[in-house]
Amino acid sequence: MVFSSKLIEDAVQAFTRLPGVGRKTALRMVLHLLKMEEEDVADFTGALSRMRTDIKLCRICHNVADTEVCAICVNRSRNQSQVCVVENIRDVIAIESTQQYNGLYHVLGGILSPLDGIGPEQLNVKTLHDRVHNNGVEELIMALSPTIEGDTTVYYISRQLHELPVKITTIARGIAFGGELEYADEMTLARSIAKRLPIDNYVSIK
Amino acid sequence: MVFSSKLIEDAVQAFTRLPGVGRKTALRMVLHLLKMEEEDVADFTGALSRMRTDIKLCRICHNVADTEVCAICVNRSRNQSQVCVVENIRDVIAIESTQQYNGLYHVLGGILSPLDGIGPEQLNVKTLHDRVHNNGVEELIMALSPTIEGDTTVYYISRQLHELPVKITTIARGIAFGGELEYADEMTLARSIAKRLPIDNYVSIK
Repeated sequence: MVFSSKLIEDAVQAFTRLPGVGRKTALRMVLHLLKMEEEDVADFTGALSRMRTDIKLCRICHNVADTEVCAICVNRSRNQSQVCVVENIRDVIAIESTQQYNGLYHVLGGILSPLDGIGPEQLNVKTLHDRVHNNGVEELIMALSPTIEGDTTVYYISRQLHELPVKITTIARGIAFGGELEYADEMTLARSIAKRLPIDNYVSIK
Repeated sequence: MVFSSKLIEDAVQAFTRLPGVGRKTALRMVLHLLKMEEEDVADFTGALSRMRTDIKLCRICHNVADTEVCAICVNRSRNQSQVCVVENIRDVIAIESTQQYNGLYHVLGGILSPLDGIGPEQLNVKTLHDRVHNNGVEELIMALSPTIEGDTTVYYISRQLHELPVKITTIARGIAFGGELEYADEMTLARSIAKRLPIDNYVSIK
């Protein structure tokens, strides 16, 4: 695409930096901004740059936060003795969106992956140890990806904390709700049979 | 989706104002910005707000421009006697991208559409008249949508300029390259037979 305006060209270029946005989509976005009021565009860009400059990482759980401690950690009505360990903030958003979990979080900032150069020192394990040690955490719920790396990370953390009196659990693995048996992969299916539940545990979550 | 951060929430909201962006896509974009360097995000938002505040409409052809007169109008190597009349800047970009046209443009800013409240006074017809009258324009190429509104606009403009010595043409209508005959609509097919061309006009455009 050929633009006769450098300003338009630059704006299209900017949008194409976003994931999943090609030049056609970027142009559509630019033309949309052109039709918006100048102050609305200022609000738009303002919200984005404010977000990038003002965002902090919670010094307790490493979740994104507007203040030094995030809204979840300061909320005293949440169960302070349960901590859900996740890889990144995306997972916090996913779990929060279920509105079923009322404990706290701990964002590791990754999972162990030697091939990608991510070792224990890159993860927020030290602060997790301190939290468990000092704050009376009773249960750690490991909500990591069901991959080799995820399982390794769970194992590593459980070794690091083995001398502390904390219960470590992982989220349930099995056939997803609405999933069709015949399309489940063999490992999941095999595991879901091995870890079968008595019928009274079979509750549907609303 | 539930966000524990107001900054994130606001940024997601901002992105959802763009066409075709829902909350999931917006979140992906926000997380992408979070991973970018602060100065890169400043470049990103800067390009967008600069575009909106600094963009001008060319006082000759009403195309978007970085200066008072757009890059196409100031380019003396373009054919000054040919003016292509289009509905909006999107059409200018589409035609420029073919790299086959070397004349000038005139952006109407819409087409006649009484149902949408767009009458002659909303369109840049007066300035078109002045250009043809004063600047020795020899040919107006009407490149408007092949709809009732487009045809009405072509007719209206040709009436407005009928006393001026200018040739008015329209872009060719017919079966698109790569189009399959059986899927063409009846009107296009009927017209393309009625307006058939001698075989020596049948040139392929590279």
